[in-house]
Amino acid sequence: MTPEPFRIGLLGHGTVGSAFAALLPERADAAAHLTGARPEIVGTLTRSQGDFEDILERSQLIVELMGGLEPARDYVLRAMRAGRHVVTANKQLLATHGEELWATAREHGVQLRFEGAVAGVVPVIRVMQESLAGSHVERVSGIVNGTTNYILTEMAGKGLSYAEALADAQRLGYAEADPTDDVTGKDAAAKMAILARLAFDTPVSIEDVRYEGIEHITADDMQFARDLRLGLKLVGTAERVGDGLSVRVHPALLYSGHPLASVHGPYNAVTVEAPTITEITMSGPGAGGPQTATAVLGDVISAMIPPATTPETTQKLAIVEDVVSAFYVRLEVADRPGVLAQVAEVLGLQGCSIKQLYQHGLGEDARLVMTIHPVLESRLFAALRLIGRLDFTRTDPHAIRVIEEEYV
Amino acid sequence: MTPEPFRIGLLGHGTVGSAFAALLPERADAAAHLTGARPEIVGTLTRSQGDFEDILERSQLIVELMGGLEPARDYVLRAMRAGRHVVTANKQLLATHGEELWATAREHGVQLRFEGAVAGVVPVIRVMQESLAGSHVERVSGIVNGTTNYILTEMAGKGLSYAEALADAQRLGYAEADPTDDVTGKDAAAKMAILARLAFDTPVSIEDVRYEGIEHITADDMQFARDLRLGLKLVGTAERVGDGLSVRVHPALLYSGHPLASVHGPYNAVTVEAPTITEITMSGPGAGGPQTATAVLGDVISAMIPPATTPETTQKLAIVEDVVSAFYVRLEVADRPGVLAQVAEVLGLQGCSIKQLYQHGLGEDARLVMTIHPVLESRLFAALRLIGRLDFTRTDPHAIRVIEEEYV
Repeated sequence: MTPEPFRIGLLGHGTVGSAFAALLPERADAAAHLTGARPEIVGTLTRSQGDFEDILERSQLIVELMGGLEPARDYVLRAMRAGRHVVTANKQLLATHGEELWATAREHGVQLRFEGAVAGVVPVIRVMQESLAGSHVERVSGIVNGTTNYILTEMAGKGLSYAEALADAQRLGYAEADPTDDVTGKDAAAKMAILARLAFDTPVSIEDVRYEGIEHITADDMQFARDLRLGLKLVGTAERVGDGLSVRVHPALLYSGHPLASVHGPYNAVTVEAPTITEITMSGPGAGGPQTATAVLGDVISAMIPPATTPETTQKLAIVEDVVSAFYVRLEVADRPGVLAQVAEVLGLQGCSIKQLYQHGLGEDARLVMTIHPVLESRLFAALRLIGRLDFTRTDPHAIRVIEEEYV
Repeated sequence: MTPEPFRIGLLGHGTVGSAFAALLPERADAAAHLTGARPEIVGTLTRSQGDFEDILERSQLIVELMGGLEPARDYVLRAMRAGRHVVTANKQLLATHGEELWATAREHGVQLRFEGAVAGVVPVIRVMQESLAGSHVERVSGIVNGTTNYILTEMAGKGLSYAEALADAQRLGYAEADPTDDVTGKDAAAKMAILARLAFDTPVSIEDVRYEGIEHITADDMQFARDLRLGLKLVGTAERVGDGLSVRVHPALLYSGHPLASVHGPYNAVTVEAPTITEITMSGPGAGGPQTATAVLGDVISAMIPPATTPETTQKLAIVEDVVSAFYVRLEVADRPGVLAQVAEVLGLQGCSIKQLYQHGLGEDARLVMTIHPVLESRLFAALRLIGRLDFTRTDPHAIRVIEEEYV
């Protein structure tokens, strides 16, 4: 018995789109075994060819791999309004217009699946939506950008500067010619918005995410991390704070026992913490055409079997901007009596308590490196602004958060 | 609008059963939001109370947390034949009677879910069945027994002997009074049978799994591992070998970059490798009442929404007993001329090639520690049997596999 065809319209034929088009025929028999129908692409829309209305008309499901906000948003909405399931890997679209899209999916009784949008083939979306559906999540932490993790791994392993490691990453295809979205943390911020929305059942868009990139990380920072046996990673965090929620992306030093500390190179990983599960971590290649195409195919197969919708949110948690964190701080100061006392006094007045202190002479100047016990970030930054204005301070103070929790 | 009740019959009220009974009311509202119905337990069968037929009659879904083969098998079969969905965490049942149970589920159009049976709350079953449904899996590796991983972690970290670490694990509740199923690898073998069945779409029962435990691991082995910066873990492996499949559980030395090397304490982790995904790793607490109960609850919620069946297998892969592996070998021999030459000759005749060699004097005796390049296991074991019979050999040769692949 020949299985029925299942007709797919493909929007976009870049890296992921072409990988999906190549993967689908290879796995169509397996999909037919699982679902009873054989998926096939009936039309592809690229910049230079194809007509959206025509492809929509002939498809049962639309795979959107164009990227960007428009016309992707328009096409996805029109497809769902016409009763078609949609699979997308477009994180900026979901992080910006997610609620509108999910509402449209519910309204028209179609599925909108997006495993490929976060952490490539690592099935964080499915786990969040299904396995953890019954859990009260306290925190989601992630290394969700492979480009920056590759750069930081190279800096840590080879003592390269940021600029050198970025150049290497570009040469090897791990970073694009314009790496802005990656190195500024914007890409990771979009992914954390999506994860936070699912984990905490509250609307979160990219505008709710504070983010900071890795452009200012120096080889000295890396040396320090190495001396203390810490990892330095670009970490996304979404966590309950009181009755609210904090979602943020920033470089962070991690103890070697942290589940994200051992995630190297272009890999991604996400850790979810909840009282009943303690914590689970999922890791794997963050992106790449074939990997993301595999995630997209998994979504297509799921869409061919049973309905599963993203339910409407029930919570309206406030977005918290200020959270408690430990820090590593580096100051370049004039090497003269009384400097350390003044620095300590300013920190103390803001409630910041020094945990460890290292002083290195540099001719007429000195470098102070210290770790700070957990404190509200606003207090630490206020102290650093004051210290930056003191006449003995040579450069702007430099601070990196330290994630102190000890895991297993 | 009050949601409809969804009626659950609970079989078993031990550690996991009582944790599930405590968790369900806490998360019933969240489940109702997701599914439209509110799950509640309408009857519990324990050794001393409850009647199975009565509970079955009143339930829409049966949660089996009794453990053991009978009467669990009988109850699960009767429940499915009566049209009830079943959620179970019973790995020995699935590893022994899985095909019969899955066939019955298909025949009666009901769901049989079992996320809690492998790796506790780590969602390996769902990921294997759904996210990776379209992938051609090459290998599954796992640390799937928390008790043995706890013992090995204690031995590695504190220099304890096996007996000391086991006693600690029993005192702290990580090992049972009778730890046989855990320390012999039988528990891990059942879990690997289930994972292999799903990953490779071929029938696998526990009888197809070769397993070896950790009872013979010594503090010396651990010292060696530490000197070489290797981890020593009880690793389950299921992999394609030619046109066949090998499924096995044994202690293994892991390079520090291996995704399983950093899994410590009572944690579990599973790595899946396939060409399109490279590899993904999932880790988290292996067992414990609340964790497994959370996995069971996730299954219950999934069963309340859409049908998802385990499809009939299409492959009939042969089970391969003999695979290629690298080894670490330790020999206690008389310290006299010619010994090393004879050992090397016997190894060489069997095609085993020494990679690294360390010799330590022990008064009249000497210890030879060596690593062996990858070789068919049967060849290495044949060589060791011959070496064991030579007159200068003081104790049986001791071999541990080395997983050599370098990951990221």
